[in-house]
Amino acid sequence: MPPGSEDRRPLLEWISAEYHGMNGGHYETLNSSPSAVEFSRICHISRPVLVKGYSVPTDQRWSDSYLSTAMSDRPVSVAVTPNGYADAVTAGPHGKKYFAEPHIQQMTMSSLLARLNGIHEDQEKRDEAYYLQSQNGNLFSSAFFDEHSGEVDLSEFMPLREDVPSEISWCSEALGRHPDAVNLWIGNNRSVTSIHSDSYENIYHVVRGRKVFTLLPPTEGWCLEERLYPHATYVRSDPDAPLALSPSPDVAPVRWSSIQHPDRRGALPSQAHPISITVSAGETLYLPAGWWHHVKQSSEITIALNWWYDIEPRGMAWVWLNLLRGGDDVPPGNVEKDDDQTM
Amino acid sequence: MPPGSEDRRPLLEWISAEYHGMNGGHYETLNSSPSAVEFSRICHISRPVLVKGYSVPTDQRWSDSYLSTAMSDRPVSVAVTPNGYADAVTAGPHGKKYFAEPHIQQMTMSSLLARLNGIHEDQEKRDEAYYLQSQNGNLFSSAFFDEHSGEVDLSEFMPLREDVPSEISWCSEALGRHPDAVNLWIGNNRSVTSIHSDSYENIYHVVRGRKVFTLLPPTEGWCLEERLYPHATYVRSDPDAPLALSPSPDVAPVRWSSIQHPDRRGALPSQAHPISITVSAGETLYLPAGWWHHVKQSSEITIALNWWYDIEPRGMAWVWLNLLRGGDDVPPGNVEKDDDQTM
Ligand SMILES: O=C(O)CCC(=O)C(=O)O
Ligand SMILES: O=C(O)CCC(=O)C(=O)O
Repeated sequence: MPPGSEDRRPLLEWISAEYHGMNGGHYETLNSSPSAVEFSRICHISRPVLVKGYSVPTDQRWSDSYLSTAMSDRPVSVAVTPNGYADAVTAGPHGKKYFAEPHIQQMTMSSLLARLNGIHEDQEKRDEAYYLQSQNGNLFSSAFFDEHSGEVDLSEFMPLREDVPSEISWCSEALGRHPDAVNLWIGNNRSVTSIHSDSYENIYHVVRGRKVFTLLPPTEGWCLEERLYPHATYVRSDPDAPLALSPSPDVAPVRWSSIQHPDRRGALPSQAHPISITVSAGETLYLPAGWWHHVKQSSEITIALNWWYDIEPRGMAWVWLNLLRGGDDVPPGNVEKDDDQTM
Repeated sequence: MPPGSEDRRPLLEWISAEYHGMNGGHYETLNSSPSAVEFSRICHISRPVLVKGYSVPTDQRWSDSYLSTAMSDRPVSVAVTPNGYADAVTAGPHGKKYFAEPHIQQMTMSSLLARLNGIHEDQEKRDEAYYLQSQNGNLFSSAFFDEHSGEVDLSEFMPLREDVPSEISWCSEALGRHPDAVNLWIGNNRSVTSIHSDSYENIYHVVRGRKVFTLLPPTEGWCLEERLYPHATYVRSDPDAPLALSPSPDVAPVRWSSIQHPDRRGALPSQAHPISITVSAGETLYLPAGWWHHVKQSSEITIALNWWYDIEPRGMAWVWLNLLRGGDDVPPGNVEKDDDQTM
């Protein structure tokens, strides 16, 4: 852990001001896919780029009827929450805040799509938010890319694999490696992904609908007021019961940002410079490793694919991100008085 | 300037230990020149690489007789010092240490080569060290690459330009730019380049002889005991007089490492991990921006070419190097007692 964590604030403020001074809040837009060498340069710069001219050949295939027919009665794992915030800080019993994991429910593709279209099967559950976001390499995982992984190459979405390239050629060639995981995301505006960062290079492609990313560079992470929150999971006592947040006393507390709406004016300190990028169907975002992202989506069904590539372990990137991330000495998130029960 | 400079030491020690832990003291050797995309990845990693399989087509041309004939009676600027340390910390009158710039002397190529071969024109000067190291883009400067620079494209080595590619294709394509300066270096083991770092990506190619680079990553700069030294220049009172060090009271003091022999065992603290790379004729070193380097050369005449490319201004590289470099609050170099008059 970097030393001097008690008063690292002046250092982090200096770094983020210098970084913003050099780079501003600009992001580049490309009208065609980059060549491998262009993309390698882009990764070196490590700033987001919106690629407008790259489309997956099967972009047109993702209609409700195609998906329902292709997937037929296979069960898929869907994250269900009462409020659309999976993997997010949420007020639980007595207003105490938890890092809440969603309830995972198996359903068919057609029943997921029906719910996302507002067609509900029973009255009690109509306010629940459904989001297919399993993000475990649900299309292609390391078992697919690495025959020596020892894992079995399984995907809930085998029938859709032919519609999704297992890798992005210009990215794989630039980075000199295969992806680590390829994911399918299906949701609507009921679900929001709370702000966090990943240590992966991310190629994020929207095939239907529209997503709005709110991004902060790794240097501005200190603006996000990370705190430690106790862990909890949404559970149902029986298949027809409403969801209840169930604390998990045996799970270590989770370090997470206290800022739920970084996309709203005034939510962040003035030293933060959020970048808002709308990614529409047919467009692709390069989201560099370590960048903080909050993601909203349009009210129509929104479908996306993403390719995660391991970050380059050599060089300074890891050290830099660890330095900016700081140590584990994050204060607990439930100490201050808290009258925002709605989060 | 980064805050907390007074006690940045624990932070810098942490960063350099983490960096060494991730990267070790390894350097890669390639047996053929990298492709542009491979070199782009290499620049991203920013660690030295020795390229054995890249040779300049005219590598065979650099004999004494060829050089003397091609250059004929054109004057070339040569750095002359009594001890071989140009641009280095050196003891001057009364043992006080200065950052000493060399005397610059004009001579023909054949007379430079004669001196480097140990053939002297007069007895008094036989101990002086001669090093062609003008390093101002002496072969190609920005005036050549940038027609809008407003400068006149002049080189002392016009007749040798046809022997030197103005750029390295795989490097220019990887970085998406032309070089900023291309230099010719001609010396022998009398001259040593003291440890310093440049904010350029450097492609360093040896055409005759052999050079030994002692390298430290940017993270270990704090091990080099940088101090502020008063500026001085070697001068001759008349063309036959010996060189004398002349302090320059109007020039600002120069920040420079106090370690003159980082290549010697025990010269550096244990937290420093110097990497020694020998670059022989026909070999090329990629020396990443910000890496500290000390350079010795073989006793035979040693000739090298280097291509400096501007560092990528976008992204985090500048901020990182500035952070590691620290502020301007470097202590003066002549305060402690000093009994090493030989320096
Ligand atoms: O699309 C989303 O909701 C979140 C995407 C995300 O967090 C990611 O790809 O890392
Ligand atoms: O070759 C030498 O003596 C020094 C080279 C050097 O410092 C450089 O290329 O930056």
